[in-house]
This record gives sequence, structure tokens and C-alpha cells, in this order.
Amino acid sequence: MLDICLLGTGGMMPLPKRWLTALMARFNGSSLLIDCGEGTQIAIKEKGWTFKPIDTICFTHYHADHISGLPGLLLTMGNADRKESLTLIGPKGLQKVVESVRVIAPELPFEIKYIELTEQMQTIERKGYIIEAYKVKHNVICYGYNLIIKRTGKFLVDRANEHGIPQKYWNQLQKGNTVTAEEGTFTPDMVMGPERKGIKVSYFTDTRPVPAIETAAQNADLFICEGMYGEKGKEAKAKEYKHMTFYEAARIGARADVKEMWLTHYSPSLIRPEDYMKDVHKIFDRCIPGKDGKSVEIGFED
Amino acid sequence: MLDICLLGTGGMMPLPKRWLTALMARFNGSSLLIDCGEGTQIAIKEKGWTFKPIDTICFTHYHADHISGLPGLLLTMGNADRKESLTLIGPKGLQKVVESVRVIAPELPFEIKYIELTEQMQTIERKGYIIEAYKVKHNVICYGYNLIIKRTGKFLVDRANEHGIPQKYWNQLQKGNTVTAEEGTFTPDMVMGPERKGIKVSYFTDTRPVPAIETAAQNADLFICEGMYGEKGKEAKAKEYKHMTFYEAARIGARADVKEMWLTHYSPSLIRPEDYMKDVHKIFDRCIPGKDGKSVEIGFED
Repeated sequence: MLDICLLGTGGMMPLPKRWLTALMARFNGSSLLIDCGEGTQIAIKEKGWTFKPIDTICFTHYHADHISGLPGLLLTMGNADRKESLTLIGPKGLQKVVESVRVIAPELPFEIKYIELTEQMQTIERKGYIIEAYKVKHNVICYGYNLIIKRTGKFLVDRANEHGIPQKYWNQLQKGNTVTAEEGTFTPDMVMGPERKGIKVSYFTDTRPVPAIETAAQNADLFICEGMYGEKGKEAKAKEYKHMTFYEAARIGARADVKEMWLTHYSPSLIRPEDYMKDVHKIFDRCIPGKDGKSVEIGFED
Repeated sequence: MLDICLLGTGGMMPLPKRWLTALMARFNGSSLLIDCGEGTQIAIKEKGWTFKPIDTICFTHYHADHISGLPGLLLTMGNADRKESLTLIGPKGLQKVVESVRVIAPELPFEIKYIELTEQMQTIERKGYIIEAYKVKHNVICYGYNLIIKRTGKFLVDRANEHGIPQKYWNQLQKGNTVTAEEGTFTPDMVMGPERKGIKVSYFTDTRPVPAIETAAQNADLFICEGMYGEKGKEAKAKEYKHMTFYEAARIGARADVKEMWLTHYSPSLIRPEDYMKDVHKIFDRCIPGKDGKSVEIGFED
């Protein structure tokens, strides 16, 4: 089960009752954050989720509304006497940016590790997540992310028996380990069926519509995507500031044929995203406006 | 009239329903902030006060909970197309710290000016405020502040008539200007009575009790003071982390004989400051627990 929470839905600046856009994922005891703006740590507390299991933070880019909450979160983690290292992932320059903002949070009791993205698309495996980073199109270097949980094939009892594999080794094989024993050498492919559909969550903010997003989000279980403007006539502004309208975002969701889509990263001038959904639904009816603290548990398909 | 708002009451980390400790003052069209932690800009919006008139921000010190909201506030000001310069005041190292955290808010349409404090006590006049900075005792260099609004003496009509000063010059003299005219040269001291009691607000956080605080706060109209711990048995912790208990703070308020005192900068572990007020009142009965967004208008005495 992958738990996803959209911690906030704001763009540019935090507002009363609207935290900055960030995502938290929980899987198998490990938590991951995408972006950490001013107030993100409060949004986590409000949701009732905890900081301790966070071992990875991915950054889309280094505009303040996506990283300004990092020094505070690091200190809060440090004050809780964290010892486990924390891995930060983000566009090139990550370490320099983080060390610079850490002038106000210099002393921490845990190590920070850095993974800097340099390619158009990069894959990182961590704690059961496959993290795919896709370069998008903003006015600074910016990435969107896929969080993927893979699912192995079924364990085929008949084939295990055909191979004469003793039952005591089945568990190891199911975990993907090769077993070398008196009875012979047994490999997982002898007993495991083809890989099954896993879980995919796609998260893209601060970008113009680019083909990489559609490719990345193809058939995602959940596609969280920026929609900065809902009002008609904002297309030019969206182009100028390298953002998207609700309608541009919805078109990507429709073409990627995602199961469900949440809009986020609303302009401070946009008060009620619900007001624009009628037109959004003409483009893609599985698109809904994200809300602060909205969460979902995504399981493997039956 | 001096408007004072205690924007938040938290120490260490922002919490749901408890912003970090910061103060905003409004006087004569000009606004001043003391400290700017993560979420301070949201607290200002929640209060319904505005960013535009803020022309001065004083920092007590550079721990993240007192400055982590600065990059976000600067960007919000910039997004509103601010052109007027902003003056920052704080302990030595201010410019270096601010330039470092501004890696995530590099482009602003307005100028930032810096005043760095180096003395035990320093006085700065700005926009009708007399700002007094007093070095206190924390685990890094830290200052507390007095905000003082001076009040000139009464205009003495009898003396103006005695000196034969034509009425058309009275207004200039009352404003403190010397008038050189056909009728002669007239100076303010010819017509103005002795300076009257002004307004004094004292703001001290992140410090052990030191004599400078009592001196600074003497007879203040409002004394806002840190009280990190209310629970009994926290005296050692307060000493170790260079903070104060409610009772240590109240003793300063009593000795300084302030008109009113608000506690703030509560430890995250302290849930209900009200619970400890009975014992606080045994020391100083004009001390009350500060609340997020608590504000007061302080006028000149009659």
C-alpha cells in the first residue's frame, strides 16, 4: 500500500488555509517528500504524519516556494535527535543551494547525502521506490517525478513442484534470491510468473506542457499536476511565467490516460478551483482539484 | 497610536495553530517587524495586516526559527512589485546570512539595506521609531529591542504670545522647525513645554535573564518577553539552552515595573500556557500569556 498526501496546493506564496504545494509518500515504513516550502513541516503535523521515517526529499527546483521550508524541517528533525542520514535529490547545484540556506541551520546530528540530477531522465532506486526524474520546462532547471512501486509476478506453485524445489526455499525465491543447496541451485525465474502491474504516481509542477510529462504519466494510478490558472484569458500569463492553465494540464492527463488526476499549485489569485471544473471535465473527467491534506491509499490491483 | 501585534508565540518550530514568535508594529503609516520565522508571512495575512508598509525588519539572532521566513517574505514583497528599499537590522553578520539564504530568492525589484549591530546597546532612529537594541545572553549573539515613540512637549500658547510670535509660524515651531522671518528668528524651545512621556514597547526573546533586559524594559507600556517553560523543574533546561522559565521572565517584568507583560516563545512541549499563570501571578500580576495574533493599540497618555 502506497499512501500519498498532497500537503498543500499553493504556488508562489503560502496563504492562510493554503500550504505550498508538496507531496508526501509512505511505503513500507519509509517516507518520501517531494519539495518542502515554507510551512510544509506544519502541514505534515496537521495531517498527523511524522518526520522520523522521511529518508528522502526530492526537489523539483530551487524557487523559494519549493525549498524554503527545508532549514526548518532539518532543525525539527535534528531537535528530535535524528541519527539516520537523509538523502536529498534534485537538479544540479543541490548541495550548493542546501549548504547556502543551512547558514541558519548549521548544526545537525545526522548526515545529509546528495544526489544531483543532470540528465533528461534519471532513475533512482531507494527503499522500495523507483524514482524517475524527468526534466521539464520552467524558467529554471526543473524536474518532475514518478514514484513507482514494482510488483513481482505470482509465485507459481505448480512450477516449483515441477522443478522439485523443496518448500523451505520458496520464501527466498519469492523474495528474488537465488538458493544454492544440496538439492541443487534454484533461481527465482524458475518459480515466478511475469512481473505484474505496480503502482505509479506522477508529480509534475512548475512547467509548461512538454511531451516528457505525458510519457512519464502514461497510465499512472495518480497524476498530480500543476494548474496555476483556471480563469479564462490566463494562457499568455501561463506561457510567460512557464506555468500551465487547468486546461493545458487536463489535456496531458487525458492523453496520458491516467486513472485519476489532481490539480495543484494554484495561483494566489485563484480562490475557488472548483469553479472551473465544468470546463476541465469537458477535457478530462477524471481530473479533480487537489485540496490541502488530500490523501489516498493506493494498493496493487487485484 | 502604536499598533502592536504578536504574530506568533512558538519557539523552535512552527506548529499547527502556533506560529513562530515575531512582532509587527504599525505607526504613522510605517510598519516594522521583529524577526521573521517560517510562516510569519502567513500570520501577517491571517491578521489582515499588510506587507507593503513594512520598511524595517529587526532580527534578534539568526537561528532558523527567527529568520527562516525571510526569503519567502522578500519574494512575496517582490511579487507585489515593491520598489521601496527595505532596511534590515540585526547582529553582526547580517548581510552575510541574508545573502546566503537569498540563494533561493535571488531576484528582487527593491534594494535591501543593512544595519549591523556591534555594541552592547545601540540606538537607531527610523520612521518615527527610536529603536534601541540591547545585547542579551543566548548561545549565539542575540539582541532584544525597545520600540520607542517619543512625544514632544505641549505647545505653550502663552509663551508664544509673550514672545510675540505670529500665529502663522506656530505650526512650524510645533513640528520642531526654527523659523527665520521678518519678525525675527523663532526656535521651538521658545514655545514648547518639556518632552512628555512617550510609548515604549520592549521585546526580548532567546535569552537568559540579564540586567540589560530589566534596564531596557523599565516602565514599558508593554513588555513582550520569552517564557520557554512553564512546568516546574525546567530551570536546568532553561539554563542549558539559554532560555527562561515563565517565573524568571515574570521577575524581570515585576522589577522593571512594566504596565503590561505578555509571555511568548513557548516550547513545543508546552501546550497550555494558561495552566501556569496562577504561580506567575504570585510574582507579577500584570503578566499574561501571549496568544498568536494578539494585538493592542497603545496611545499617548492623556
